[in-house]
Amino acid sequence: MLPIAVDAMGGDNAPCEIVAGAKRAALDLGIPVVLVGRSAELGDTENLAVIEASEVIAMDADPGSSVRRMRDSSLVRAATAVRDGSASAMVSAGNTGATMASALLRMGRIRGINRPAIAIPVPVPGGTHTTLLDAGANAECRPEWLVEFAQMGCVYARDRFRIDRPKVGLLSIGEEAGKGNKFVKDCFERLNESAWAESSGAEWIGNVEGRDVMTDHVDVVVTDGFTGNVTLKTLEGAMSALLGRLLAAIDTDDRTRRAGEMLAGPLDAMVAELHPDSTGGALLLGVKGVCVISHGSSSADAIANAIRIAAEMVNVNMVEHLSAAVRKK
Amino acid sequence: MLPIAVDAMGGDNAPCEIVAGAKRAALDLGIPVVLVGRSAELGDTENLAVIEASEVIAMDADPGSSVRRMRDSSLVRAATAVRDGSASAMVSAGNTGATMASALLRMGRIRGINRPAIAIPVPVPGGTHTTLLDAGANAECRPEWLVEFAQMGCVYARDRFRIDRPKVGLLSIGEEAGKGNKFVKDCFERLNESAWAESSGAEWIGNVEGRDVMTDHVDVVVTDGFTGNVTLKTLEGAMSALLGRLLAAIDTDDRTRRAGEMLAGPLDAMVAELHPDSTGGALLLGVKGVCVISHGSSSADAIANAIRIAAEMVNVNMVEHLSAAVRKK
Repeated sequence: MLPIAVDAMGGDNAPCEIVAGAKRAALDLGIPVVLVGRSAELGDTENLAVIEASEVIAMDADPGSSVRRMRDSSLVRAATAVRDGSASAMVSAGNTGATMASALLRMGRIRGINRPAIAIPVPVPGGTHTTLLDAGANAECRPEWLVEFAQMGCVYARDRFRIDRPKVGLLSIGEEAGKGNKFVKDCFERLNESAWAESSGAEWIGNVEGRDVMTDHVDVVVTDGFTGNVTLKTLEGAMSALLGRLLAAIDTDDRTRRAGEMLAGPLDAMVAELHPDSTGGALLLGVKGVCVISHGSSSADAIANAIRIAAEMVNVNMVEHLSAAVRKK
Repeated sequence: MLPIAVDAMGGDNAPCEIVAGAKRAALDLGIPVVLVGRSAELGDTENLAVIEASEVIAMDADPGSSVRRMRDSSLVRAATAVRDGSASAMVSAGNTGATMASALLRMGRIRGINRPAIAIPVPVPGGTHTTLLDAGANAECRPEWLVEFAQMGCVYARDRFRIDRPKVGLLSIGEEAGKGNKFVKDCFERLNESAWAESSGAEWIGNVEGRDVMTDHVDVVVTDGFTGNVTLKTLEGAMSALLGRLLAAIDTDDRTRRAGEMLAGPLDAMVAELHPDSTGGALLLGVKGVCVISHGSSSADAIANAIRIAAEMVNVNMVEHLSAAVRKK
């Protein structure tokens, strides 16, 4: 396998945690990795290959203009490496908008896809992850794009979570067909009528609600990028609030703190199951290459997971499956 | 105080739990209550007054047509009692759409309000509830309505949670002014320009994100009814998934079960703090009367809480405060 290009300069904890995660993926998991960035700033890379890139796109920079202007940035170089066939995939914890723009500009769109979408795996306690898309690439969507999101989400759920016939639902505010705003009703009609479900091997289950996302009632939740991003961040906020409240409950007195120690193992497992770092980040689906967008706050663990997922998606030929799925529509 | 009219027939657990909750409010909290429904089906009401109503609007009935058609339904009779001055407020755990339609049709809108909105108090661990509105009354909104929602949310946060100068934010997908879809950007401009914040005594803090809802960063989150309902149900789903996962962690083995017993007190307090039953349901703001919409699955506790909140909002003159707030815009 060609190496995974890892943007060493992107993320709140770059380059230190990024390089540490890349080393872990290379040494512990045996995945070929190439770092992209300023080699002089990367510290001890333990002989990992480096693609030199002199510029860094800041976390809060304007995506479009910085990608056009900073051609020697780590992000643009990473995307270029995939396009040129010197890397098999890219991973970045940097500026999300700039990561999307770099991938789109350098790798290009898959034929038949109007807009790439961000797919997020949401953990389901005791079940299989639910794929939520679009989680933020397109704040404004046309109804026909959501059919493409459904097709892509279906491929991803199959390639990543081995769900043979994913249950696909449209995020709305009631299960009945007539529920939602005008946009969602239009999307429902298209998703309900077209032949995408049969050609994609999906089970179209109609409208689903916010409370279904963290359950096994649905495998792929389709929505516009605005609603998807609100949903994702609401979930993150709820997790964080609840886990914080749980720690406070355990910290009540000596007796409860002792109980907390007795529960340490199962509670650590619970946090690991629900923590974003374990899911390996989001995928930008619809570009001609595998592009993993990690959380800005990614730790070395999160980066190692992201690289592992990128390698899995390369090995399973996800991009070809996406192309085939939309050709059939 | 005039009695609170309680729809005895509405809700998954009606009439049993509703009557039990009404009795609790009357006997334990000393709040005057009148039940509305089929007196023959209410069991032992311990001398609570009853307004006779022969019809029941089903949980899944079409709201508009059933309210127009079923004038002798418990919901319509409860709303009529408020309009006629024989009750001070109404409480129902029945069909949400029909509750809104009854209140709107019988009580009418407050002058200056285009559309009533549902305000939901979201628990904030260790902090003050965040008021989310519109949580589902209007799937499709105009930007100017959100200014009214902001004004009403501000009054509610002050009357209910005693927040003198509520921090009001617009739900979006980034904190910067330019973030969001076209609708949200339009709302931002209106909320940012108009004099509502000063006249309402609010602190306008601009865009907020889903992850802020369960924190004290914001007191009132303004959004359209589609996004608000998705957010609310996503929060409910996350709570339910996480609490379920926590119980599974405690149920690992004998040792962890013993730890769970040691933690029972603080964990019960945590669940009580976060459970929807404790917050007393949603308020329909913008109609000429206090209307509390309780969860369909409301227990007796939830109904007693809803009646308590209704009485508080009557005593504090919330409806007059709402009228005064929108007159100033």
